[in-house]
Amino acid sequence: MPTREPQNRQFRLAARPQGLPRRSDWSFITAPVQPPGAGEVLVRVLYISLDPAMRGWMHEGKSYIPPVQIGAVMRALGLGRVVRSQSPDFREGDIVTGAFGVQDYATLPAREVHAVPPGIAPLPAFLGVLGMPGITAYFGLLEIGRPVKGETVVVSGAAGAVGAVVGQIARIAGCRAVGIAGGPEKCRYLTEELGFDAAIDRHAEDVRAALERHCPDGINIYFDNVGGPILDDCLALLALHARVVLCGAISQYNSTGPIKGPSNYISLLINRARMEGMVVFDYMHRAPEALRAIGQWIVEGRIKHREDIVEGVENFPEAFLRLFSGENFGKLVLRVTAE
Amino acid sequence: MPTREPQNRQFRLAARPQGLPRRSDWSFITAPVQPPGAGEVLVRVLYISLDPAMRGWMHEGKSYIPPVQIGAVMRALGLGRVVRSQSPDFREGDIVTGAFGVQDYATLPAREVHAVPPGIAPLPAFLGVLGMPGITAYFGLLEIGRPVKGETVVVSGAAGAVGAVVGQIARIAGCRAVGIAGGPEKCRYLTEELGFDAAIDRHAEDVRAALERHCPDGINIYFDNVGGPILDDCLALLALHARVVLCGAISQYNSTGPIKGPSNYISLLINRARMEGMVVFDYMHRAPEALRAIGQWIVEGRIKHREDIVEGVENFPEAFLRLFSGENFGKLVLRVTAE
Repeated sequence: MPTREPQNRQFRLAARPQGLPRRSDWSFITAPVQPPGAGEVLVRVLYISLDPAMRGWMHEGKSYIPPVQIGAVMRALGLGRVVRSQSPDFREGDIVTGAFGVQDYATLPAREVHAVPPGIAPLPAFLGVLGMPGITAYFGLLEIGRPVKGETVVVSGAAGAVGAVVGQIARIAGCRAVGIAGGPEKCRYLTEELGFDAAIDRHAEDVRAALERHCPDGINIYFDNVGGPILDDCLALLALHARVVLCGAISQYNSTGPIKGPSNYISLLINRARMEGMVVFDYMHRAPEALRAIGQWIVEGRIKHREDIVEGVENFPEAFLRLFSGENFGKLVLRVTAE
Repeated sequence: MPTREPQNRQFRLAARPQGLPRRSDWSFITAPVQPPGAGEVLVRVLYISLDPAMRGWMHEGKSYIPPVQIGAVMRALGLGRVVRSQSPDFREGDIVTGAFGVQDYATLPAREVHAVPPGIAPLPAFLGVLGMPGITAYFGLLEIGRPVKGETVVVSGAAGAVGAVVGQIARIAGCRAVGIAGGPEKCRYLTEELGFDAAIDRHAEDVRAALERHCPDGINIYFDNVGGPILDDCLALLALHARVVLCGAISQYNSTGPIKGPSNYISLLINRARMEGMVVFDYMHRAPEALRAIGQWIVEGRIKHREDIVEGVENFPEAFLRLFSGENFGKLVLRVTAE
């Protein structure tokens, strides 16, 4: 490798965190850029997606994908530009997404990289509404939730990357959308900009009482991003044959004690309701279908989106924590370098 | 009403129990027999079905049917003989089932009464394998669980009225059946008489470890009659795309504290699994389909059944508690009078 090759700053997992991750749970090092082998591409990372699921990937134990190994580059989805290609499928300058990790440069097989179509939205949106969170919202709501016109859909983490899309697709499907979010600013955003029928401020309101007010006929679909007491509140108010889409449990990810199980789960029995888990990776073969629909809705002005951009890969640990404090507003993205 | 009319002994709900019901939660009184009006029948109750669900019916609050009111005859399914009919649909001597309550005589509309076909099994079986528990097992397993040949089905309360049928239908569907029950006698019954592939004695074994041993590829269907720690053990071992059929939660019915929610519910997410509630009343319009199939399997010797008969309506409170202590062995039935 030529000595003039730029250096690659990386966050590598150093320890399995207890509770909220700390900077010391990663080592921040500089490594040589790995030249691409046959069939590989070298990507200059432009944006890193910060997602709640990353907290799960740091946890040892069985899950839907293996955990990040100690010493490995912290796993993260990203968006970047191909700077060298050893694959006929990509050329220098192509804008691509993939699991690039928290680093400046990623070297990986071309088959693990996806081209970003030019144009309909700014690049960071391809990590949010037009990326994994959008695909999650689309299939989670439509395939697991199966909304029927006139039903009431409740979503938690409603101002987050997934939740905001869930509520807007619920509206497009002819449902009432009730969002639960933290703080008056997010709640105003939901009702005034995104068209939610109602928003509940979990910091300022009794969530259970507010749900009773906004869902007088019960909850037909609850799209759960948070777990914990809000899951219990929603379970208590399920309508007959309700569906609970389990997408995440952000309130529990940093728990150092046992997970809080939903005490009101027997409401599933009483109401002949269904609670079902959703992992977006199962739907990646159908991603184009979701992205076509969402793209069209963006063009038509029926889906709006918002990204919350933090500068500098070196700020990764602190930026990541904004997900759990609720400080982020919109899809949280780390900008690594100028486009 | 003629004064020579026999008297009707009744248990009426006197108080909403805290924890395990006590005799003082009912009043045991003698009332006149109510003559049938137009369209009604008078039934001499022969057998009363004792079911865990009855504990739920004593509880105030929203459920799938309204609670038994204070002062009302305790609700129970039963089997009896028509002794007077004001309906063209029934004649004196007909053997019928219905929600007769815990009493000697029931007077009710003919449309709420179902004729029992003559012959393939002793009468108490029509409150068990050929009654509500059998129908529950049939639709719960086949419609909610949707077994696929070669899968592993775990059922708790496996020696109970519902569980025993679930395991046997699972075998008929080509699945491995693993039962969880209390005590060596019940476990032997499951494997030696009912053909379960394995039985776990929850009193003598570490249920989680035994499940790991008997379900090396995970649990495809868990049919839950008990809730509590066993639900958590099963959730922890779900296979991909598993189904959890919520049929009951007998371990929690007498809880005076908060219900124990399943801490391992996030396994539903990780494994893209589904947990769904089942109430047999939703399937009553299809009861003949279930009873035809189960009747045929009984005739062919592929489904066996067992009833646990306690004598005397006056012993109702103590007999009912056998469900919660696990003392009953087979479908628990109270015999009111000789056939």
